[in-house]
Parts: sequence; C-alpha cells; structure tokens
Amino acid sequence: MKQVPIGISARHIHLSPEHIEVLFGTGYQLKELKPLSQPGQFAAEEQVAIIGPKGKFDKVRILGPARGKTQIEVSRTDAFALGVNPPVRESGNIAGTPGLIVRGPAGEVELQEGVIVAARHIHFHTEDAAKWGITDKQRLRVRVNGERPLIFEDVIARVSEQYALDMHIDTDEGNAAGVKTGEMAEILED
Amino acid sequence: MKQVPIGISARHIHLSPEHIEVLFGTGYQLKELKPLSQPGQFAAEEQVAIIGPKGKFDKVRILGPARGKTQIEVSRTDAFALGVNPPVRESGNIAGTPGLIVRGPAGEVELQEGVIVAARHIHFHTEDAAKWGITDKQRLRVRVNGERPLIFEDVIARVSEQYALDMHIDTDEGNAAGVKTGEMAEILED
Repeated sequence: MKQVPIGISARHIHLSPEHIEVLFGTGYQLKELKPLSQPGQFAAEEQVAIIGPKGKFDKVRILGPARGKTQIEVSRTDAFALGVNPPVRESGNIAGTPGLIVRGPAGEVELQEGVIVAARHIHFHTEDAAKWGITDKQRLRVRVNGERPLIFEDVIARVSEQYALDMHIDTDEGNAAGVKTGEMAEILED
Repeated sequence: MKQVPIGISARHIHLSPEHIEVLFGTGYQLKELKPLSQPGQFAAEEQVAIIGPKGKFDKVRILGPARGKTQIEVSRTDAFALGVNPPVRESGNIAGTPGLIVRGPAGEVELQEGVIVAARHIHFHTEDAAKWGITDKQRLRVRVNGERPLIFEDVIARVSEQYALDMHIDTDEGNAAGVKTGEMAEILED
C-alpha cells in the first residue's frame, strides 16, 4: 500500500522580498511561527489582509521563506467570497491569473496577478518516488477513506530531493472528503 | 452510461410550520421564488439569519414547503465559520445534532438540534432506478469529470415515485470537483 499523509492547506500567501518590504517596512524579515512539512518551508508569525472586489479576509497566513513572485492560494469557496475567479493551477504558474489587494501594517500592494486555486499534488522525496515507481508530473489516483470517502484523480506527483512525502489538498477538498491534516491517503494502482 | 445531473446545494434551511410562525408571524405562508429539481419543492422568497457561537450568515435561503422538523444544511466550511460541529447525515436524521439560533423578521428560535452536513445522495424516480438496477439505500460510486475530476464513493441512492433524477452534493463537494449545477456525473459499475 502506497500510503501518504494528507496536509490540508488553508488560504495563504507567499510574498516576494519586495512585497514584504512594502507590507512590513524596509529590511523586514519574516519570523518563523512553525515549520511546514516541506523542509525549509515555514508558517510565518505575520499575517496580511487580502481584499477582493466582493469580500476580504483579514488574517491570512504568510508562508515563508520569500519567493520570486507573490502568490495567493485560496479555495474556490474563498474565491467566491472575495469575488475573484482564479484558475486551478500548479504553484508558480500564475500568468494570467487575477490579482487582489494585499494590506500589511506598513502599506499595501495591488497585485495584477497571483491568485490561484492550487491543483492537488503530492510531494515525494526522490527515494519514495523511486521505491514506488512514480515519476515527476505523473497524474495519480488517490483514495481518501475519510468520513466521506472519495478518490481524487489528476493528483500531480512532484518529485525532488528537497521534498518530504505529503499530499496537499485545499480546504474544499479536505471538507468534501471529511479528513483532517495528518490522516492518510492511498495511491491507487492504475 | 448512467448519467445524472448534478445539483449543488448551498446552505439552506427547512422550517417547521410552528417555526415559520415564530420567525415570520402568525399564519404566515412561504412564497415560492422558484421550483427545485424535486417535484413540489421550492426555494422560498424568504431568508433568515442563522447564528452560531462563532459566526453567522445573514441571508440563508428557506426551502419549502414546511416540514415536520426544522433542519439546517450547511457545508463543513460553513460549520467552521458558525462554530458548530454537525455530523454528516441523511436529511431528516437530526437526533443528537447541534442547534443554532435562527432569526427572522418577527422573532427568533433557539434550535436544540437540526444542523447537519448533508450526506451526498442521488434522487431517482422509481423508473430510472428500475431501468439501471438501482435500489433504495444502495451506496454508489459516481465519477464527476469536472475541472478537478474525482470519484465520490458512498453516494446514497434514494428512490421514490416522488423524485426526479438529480445528484445532490454540497458546495465543498462541488468546489472540490470543480463543477456547477447542471453538469453531469456518471454512476460507475461496481
């Protein structure tokens, strides 16, 4: 059995170094609140507001460290509340996506793009992927046997020596399956 | 192919005749806004507020006609926002579920129970069920080929001469699959 822990991602934001300075002040560095499942990644102490044409969320967690481009990941439910219509995308692929206003204690940024609904995916360390015969970018079928059992299709495999084994789904997907972070999913044989 | 139209249920409330009178006044009758997929059922013009320990929703649609017991159906996302922890249940099975405060223009009701996350299900007219060899209460596997394809398991078949063919899922489930009301799902062979 190819079992994978589930991590449910609530809405969050990744910030570029430039935007961190606009939002928090010149030279500001994010403070680590707690480490995430992926090595080197962390939830920061800092939060920002994100403001859409229809609604806003006041306390959105920043994930660190800083990235090349600012990216906001929301659920479809969140997107309706904000009044934006982001596509389902892999992280980093933000061309042509909608923007939002991001507000911090020192200033605000009007993003022209960067809002996505994250495509569900599994991070594999190279050794886990090799052991199970899984290759980077492969599409997997994954059964989640929660309170509301279902099989996610088109789950994208992402393989790297930098990764730790973890399946990332958003809150809509976690709620639809009736599961919580830390519960296990099973990759099905094709 | 056993194809079924999908109906996505947003949060809503069914009211008992007694509660309609408390919320809207003695002798009040719900007004039909538009018919639903199930014969005789309708979305009412009236809305109420539902108030939980943590949050509230101001405009919750009432579905008519009146029922024996008041029942509130919310998504898991809604339940977190309200601060209640309802179980996943079939409609009508509300024993031991949490309550909420319901507020209308003429008064309010403090429910002791009645809040559920509705278990996904398909309404079959008796003839559809017979044609496909499906029996009442059967658990089905249903593929939804939306923007985020998945297979829902444990979809409950409900068969009656009063029903029209329709699969009911909630907004978390609809968003997790990336589908909208009116799109089609496929019942898989076992």
